[in-house]
Amino acid sequence: MQDSNYLQRDALGIVEASKIRVFDQPMVLESGVCFGPIDVAYETYGTLSPERDNVILVCHALSGGAHAAGWLPGAAKPGWWDVFIGPGKALDTDRYHVVCSNVLGSCYGTTGPSSIDPSTGKPYGTSFPVVTVADMVQVQAKLLELLGIDSLLSVIGGSMGGMQALQWAVQYPDKVRSVIGIATTSHHSAQQIAFNEVARQAIMADPAWNGGNYYGTEGPRLGLAVARMIGHITYLSDVGMAQKFGRRLRNREKFGYDFSLDFEVESYLRYQGESFVGRFDANSLLYMTKALDYCDLTNGGTRSLEEAFKGCPARFLLIAFSSDWLYPAYQLKAVAHAVRRNHGDATYCEIRSDYGHDAFLLEYQEQMPIVASFLERVSRAGRRMHARSG
Amino acid sequence: MQDSNYLQRDALGIVEASKIRVFDQPMVLESGVCFGPIDVAYETYGTLSPERDNVILVCHALSGGAHAAGWLPGAAKPGWWDVFIGPGKALDTDRYHVVCSNVLGSCYGTTGPSSIDPSTGKPYGTSFPVVTVADMVQVQAKLLELLGIDSLLSVIGGSMGGMQALQWAVQYPDKVRSVIGIATTSHHSAQQIAFNEVARQAIMADPAWNGGNYYGTEGPRLGLAVARMIGHITYLSDVGMAQKFGRRLRNREKFGYDFSLDFEVESYLRYQGESFVGRFDANSLLYMTKALDYCDLTNGGTRSLEEAFKGCPARFLLIAFSSDWLYPAYQLKAVAHAVRRNHGDATYCEIRSDYGHDAFLLEYQEQMPIVASFLERVSRAGRRMHARSG
Repeated sequence: MQDSNYLQRDALGIVEASKIRVFDQPMVLESGVCFGPIDVAYETYGTLSPERDNVILVCHALSGGAHAAGWLPGAAKPGWWDVFIGPGKALDTDRYHVVCSNVLGSCYGTTGPSSIDPSTGKPYGTSFPVVTVADMVQVQAKLLELLGIDSLLSVIGGSMGGMQALQWAVQYPDKVRSVIGIATTSHHSAQQIAFNEVARQAIMADPAWNGGNYYGTEGPRLGLAVARMIGHITYLSDVGMAQKFGRRLRNREKFGYDFSLDFEVESYLRYQGESFVGRFDANSLLYMTKALDYCDLTNGGTRSLEEAFKGCPARFLLIAFSSDWLYPAYQLKAVAHAVRRNHGDATYCEIRSDYGHDAFLLEYQEQMPIVASFLERVSRAGRRMHARSG
Repeated sequence: MQDSNYLQRDALGIVEASKIRVFDQPMVLESGVCFGPIDVAYETYGTLSPERDNVILVCHALSGGAHAAGWLPGAAKPGWWDVFIGPGKALDTDRYHVVCSNVLGSCYGTTGPSSIDPSTGKPYGTSFPVVTVADMVQVQAKLLELLGIDSLLSVIGGSMGGMQALQWAVQYPDKVRSVIGIATTSHHSAQQIAFNEVARQAIMADPAWNGGNYYGTEGPRLGLAVARMIGHITYLSDVGMAQKFGRRLRNREKFGYDFSLDFEVESYLRYQGESFVGRFDANSLLYMTKALDYCDLTNGGTRSLEEAFKGCPARFLLIAFSSDWLYPAYQLKAVAHAVRRNHGDATYCEIRSDYGHDAFLLEYQEQMPIVASFLERVSRAGRRMHARSG
């Protein structure tokens, strides 16, 4: 694959999308509800070592999926984190076996509200149960079990992916040797909940949402677009938007003195909103944002973050970005402090960037050496352990 | 009035709402469009001095109106800035004659999209012309002319009101002795435009908006509520929301595992959205936010802020709040620098507050002495001028 003309030397080449039924019988969700069957879409890159000790689980963000790297046959662009995953890259597929799966509740192959309910032959819609980040992680653990993987060298993710990674450390402390959380948090603040709630209200305000029962129709296109526009503002920063758009006008010299497009930033947002509509399911956005809002490693304040991470042997790498106001740096600092108060190993990095929350995808060159050396350190510690126990 | 039982000693008592036709013939808008007639709702407090030199014009924010202070007959609460305006208060009605009018395009008595177009007998809707902050100010100037007021001791406002105040200094430099701009800017950033655009899209995405032709129906209730919810997030701060709501649940101990209300912040936002619907016109929100986005004292970057304020003899008091991320402090700092580079008189204050943009209304006790002493200084300078010329 490496010699194909259109592929870079350090690229993965063509990859394969896989799907597996992880729960044939219903699984017990965090809410107590039994739900199944559950299928999971996933991809793997690199080779599983004979000791099965080189696995990195990649967790995706809200609008991502299992296709993290490489090219699917006939695709126009590679996976969403192709810059980060591949031979010689931060997640070096010459050394590591990388697994990425689509989360429970999403719409890219794993069971979600748009999946067919086998008991009715119709999409679940809002009969889909409310799921949590703990449920997403439980499904990932089951997938890994079916793939013959008992433990993870690392679990890594940004934003919603990082919330899964932190949840992994707490939920399966014996299976996780390290956690890399990027632009993320242990629990949403009131402001983060507020933005998610407005996005949900924008969708549900659209009559075409129809109580979630819109499959086979165009669905809540306008509401979903508004929800995505709100999201995109929070993914950027004030200074980043000033640099990217400023007050530049679109296709005209003077104001239009009407309500059509005037400013480039308006055009950008509308494009982001409209293009999202064709590739994401509105109900999945409702379920996944609710899962994020519910996620809380302090269990509703009944335990401290320090108590949450007690007994987690994992090493932590926590990366925040200076202009990220959606997942502000103080949230990951608090995680680092909690780990350290347990005498755990936490490396906290704050990268200066004007890209806001988007920096977790855009500032990959800054993150690559940090992540690569952290993984190297975790790998060596593992080999020393092997040597001692051997 | 002062001795009425339910009134405080420092209150204005019962006030009168007035209305006047300021343009019987069409006025020329900044866009070049001729538009009229134009009625203006206004109120005045305090007594006009014989020299007519004690007038303070109060400019209201997006959802405000002419009723700034005192009690309208039978009202359940006083005007929106009653804490600030009255005998002995910052805008001391024992000394100053305070005027407040509803802006062009609003829905509280001044001509706006919900007003009846005399040529059709129906509400204007979106046949109302796009208006600008300069047009709002022109209408205010005409009102003052009709009230026999040639010049202003001060023009004061927060947020949108502050943008009008700054516009006054540039548009009528000879009529303005001082400007007090609070939590405001000389022009919106891309981020401010972006939030306004999403609010507009939320309204226009509601089928009940019906191209702006919804009068006589319920109108775009859901879209307007979503727009207001977006606004309310931007009026608060991350730390303020954490203090006010945190992750507290509403009326339950555990998560509902459904899409009904869970968090107090969600309940707050929905209440704010729903209560706004009954008291504001969606089309006015469209027109007024567009006016704010167009407002630009640098004329599209064709002149610097320094050039914009060249030849403005007004003294400036500029007040920003540390946690206001919607109208961040750097914007008013830039105004202060521009005025000073012209050797003008600009006082810049940054008040520490966790209330975000809302601080401009909530932190009145911090602002009162600053505003009062600034006005005292401007008044004295005026009396010295009178003495010299007399």
